[in-house]
Amino acid sequence: MFETIASTLDWFGVVVFTVTGCLVASRKQMDIVGFALMGTVTGIGGGTLRDTLLNLPVFWIEEPSYLLTCGVTSVVIFFTAHIPQSRYRTLLWLDAVGLALFAVTGAGRAMDAGVGAAVVVAMGVVTATFGGIIRDLLGGESPVILTREVYITAALAAAAAFIGLIGLGAVREFATAVGFVVGLLVRAAALHFHWSLPRYKPRPGVDTA
Amino acid sequence: MFETIASTLDWFGVVVFTVTGCLVASRKQMDIVGFALMGTVTGIGGGTLRDTLLNLPVFWIEEPSYLLTCGVTSVVIFFTAHIPQSRYRTLLWLDAVGLALFAVTGAGRAMDAGVGAAVVVAMGVVTATFGGIIRDLLGGESPVILTREVYITAALAAAAAFIGLIGLGAVREFATAVGFVVGLLVRAAALHFHWSLPRYKPRPGVDTA
Amino acid sequence: MFETIASTLDWFGVVVFTVTGCLVASRKQMDIVGFALMGTVTGIGGGTLRDTLLNLPVFWIEEPSYLLTCGVTSVVIFFTAHIPQSRYRTLLWLDAVGLALFAVTGAGRAMDAGVGAAVVVAMGVVTATFGGIIRDLLGGESPVILTREVYITAALAAAAAFIGLIGLGAVREFATAVGFVVGLLVRAAALHFHWSLPRYKPRPGVDTA
Repeated sequence: MFETIASTLDWFGVVVFTVTGCLVASRKQMDIVGFALMGTVTGIGGGTLRDTLLNLPVFWIEEPSYLLTCGVTSVVIFFTAHIPQSRYRTLLWLDAVGLALFAVTGAGRAMDAGVGAAVVVAMGVVTATFGGIIRDLLGGESPVILTREVYITAALAAAAAFIGLIGLGAVREFATAVGFVVGLLVRAAALHFHWSLPRYKPRPGVDTA
Repeated sequence: MFETIASTLDWFGVVVFTVTGCLVASRKQMDIVGFALMGTVTGIGGGTLRDTLLNLPVFWIEEPSYLLTCGVTSVVIFFTAHIPQSRYRTLLWLDAVGLALFAVTGAGRAMDAGVGAAVVVAMGVVTATFGGIIRDLLGGESPVILTREVYITAALAAAAAFIGLIGLGAVREFATAVGFVVGLLVRAAALHFHWSLPRYKPRPGVDTA
Repeated sequence: MFETIASTLDWFGVVVFTVTGCLVASRKQMDIVGFALMGTVTGIGGGTLRDTLLNLPVFWIEEPSYLLTCGVTSVVIFFTAHIPQSRYRTLLWLDAVGLALFAVTGAGRAMDAGVGAAVVVAMGVVTATFGGIIRDLLGGESPVILTREVYITAALAAAAAFIGLIGLGAVREFATAVGFVVGLLVRAAALHFHWSLPRYKPRPGVDTA
C-alpha cells in the first residue's frame, strides 16, 4: 500500500475525501451502510472516473485495500462524526489537502498513461473534484463545488504547476511537491481571505428567461 | 438469451428494474420515449457501471436483446402502468427480487473477471443499486436508496454470502441460490417488519453548521 | 482537426453544446472556472460516455484540441453570455443542430466499432442527449431533456435513419446527411409547432402513492 510516496499521498487523499462524504451522510442522518456508500464513493470517485477515461485498470480494483480503507474510515466516522463536525473548519482544511493531493497524483497517473499536457491537467481536476460532485449529487444537494470560492481553480493550478515543471525538466518528486504546495496555498488563501473569482452578472434589461 | 441459469436470472432482473424505472416515469407523467429512457437506464445501469469498472465489454453491447427487452417492457408499462401502480406493494417485492438477483449475478461476473473478494462484493452492490440511484437522480428525486430501510445491506449480504460460499468450496449454482435467498430474505424481512439500521443522530450541543 | 467531414460536424456539435452548458452556468451566476467546467462537461459528455461504453479511446484524450475548444468557447461566452441569452430562441435552434449532429456522428462512431444496429441507435441517442442530462444534473435542475417536447425522439429518428440507410446500401456521406436532416426537421417541427408526444396520465381512482 505504501510502496511509493505517490501511493501514500493518494491513500491520504482517499481517507480525507471519505471523511467529507461521511459528513454529508451524517447531515442526512443516514445509517452505517449509507455512510459507507457515501464515504467510499466520495473517496474513490474521482480516481475511478480518471482511470475509466484513461482506459486504465481502476486503481481500487487492482488494490482493494483502498476499498477496505474507505469502509473502515466510514465506520469510524459513523461513531465519531460529532468530533470532526464540531471541527468543521479543520475539515475544510483537510479537504483542501485532499484536493491538492489528488490534483497532483491524478495528473501524475495521467502523465504515466502518456497523454498530452491539456489532458494531464484535466485529469488532475477530474480526480480532485469528481468525488465531491458525486457526493453532493447523491446527497441531494446542488454540487457546491461549482459555486464554492476558488475550488476547481486550486486543482487547476496544482495540476498545471506539476506538468509545467515536468515540461521544464524538473524531477517528478519536485514537481509533485511544488504542485501540491501551489494547490494547497491557492485553496488556503481562498479560505482565509474569502477569495472568489468574479461571478457572471446578468446585464440589466436582458431577457434571461 | 437463455443459455445459462445466470443469464436467465439476469434477464429477469433487467425486466423488473425496467418496470421500476417506468413507474418513476409515470409519476413524472413522461411520454413514451421518456418511459423507454428511464426504464432502460434503470434496467441496465447497474450492470453497465459494473462492466465499465471491470474493463469488460458492456453486456448489452455484446447482447443487444437486453436493450430490446428494456424497450418492449417500457412500451408495455406505458400502456399498463396503472396496473402495477395500483399494486405498489407487489412492485416493492419485485424490486426486492431484482435486488437479490443482481447482487449475485453481478458478484458472479466480477468473480469471473478474476478480482479479489472485496471487489466481488462491491460489484454485487454496484450492480444491484446503481440502476435505482441513476433512476432517482434522473427523475429529480433524492436517491431513496440511501435512506430506504436495509436496502444496500441486503445486496451486501447476498454478494457476501455468494463469495463466502465459493471461498468455502461450494458449487457455483449452490452459492448463487443461497446468496439470492439471503438477499431476498433480508430485504423481505426489512419490508415486512419495517426494519432499519440505527441512523446517525447529531449530538446535542454540537455545531452542525 | 478537420480531417474529415464527420470530425468537422462533431466539432461544431461540441461548440454548440458547450454554449448551452455555459448558459446554464450564467443562470447560476458561476465564475469563469464554473463556466469552463459546465461548458466542457456539456460539450464532451455525450461522446465521452459513448466511447467509454464502446471501450474506445475517449475522443478528447486522443485529440485534446476538443478540450481546448471547450475552454476557449467557455471564456468567450463568460464575457458575451448576455448576447446569446437575449437570443434564447436562436440558441434553442443551435441546440437542435447539435442534437442532430451528435446523433449521426455518435451512431457513425458506434458503427465503426462494429456493434449491432440497436446499439448504434442507442449510441446516437447517448451522444446527443447525455451532455445535456449531466449539464442539468450539475446545474441542480431536473433534467429538462426528459420532459421537453420530442427531444430524445429527434435523436432516435436521426440515428435510425442513418443506420437504416446504411443497411439499405447507402453511401456513408448520404446516410449522414439524411440522418442529420431528419433529426433537425423533427426537432425543428417540434419547436415550431410545439409538438409533444402524449404523456402518461394517471387513471382516476388509482392509488399513485
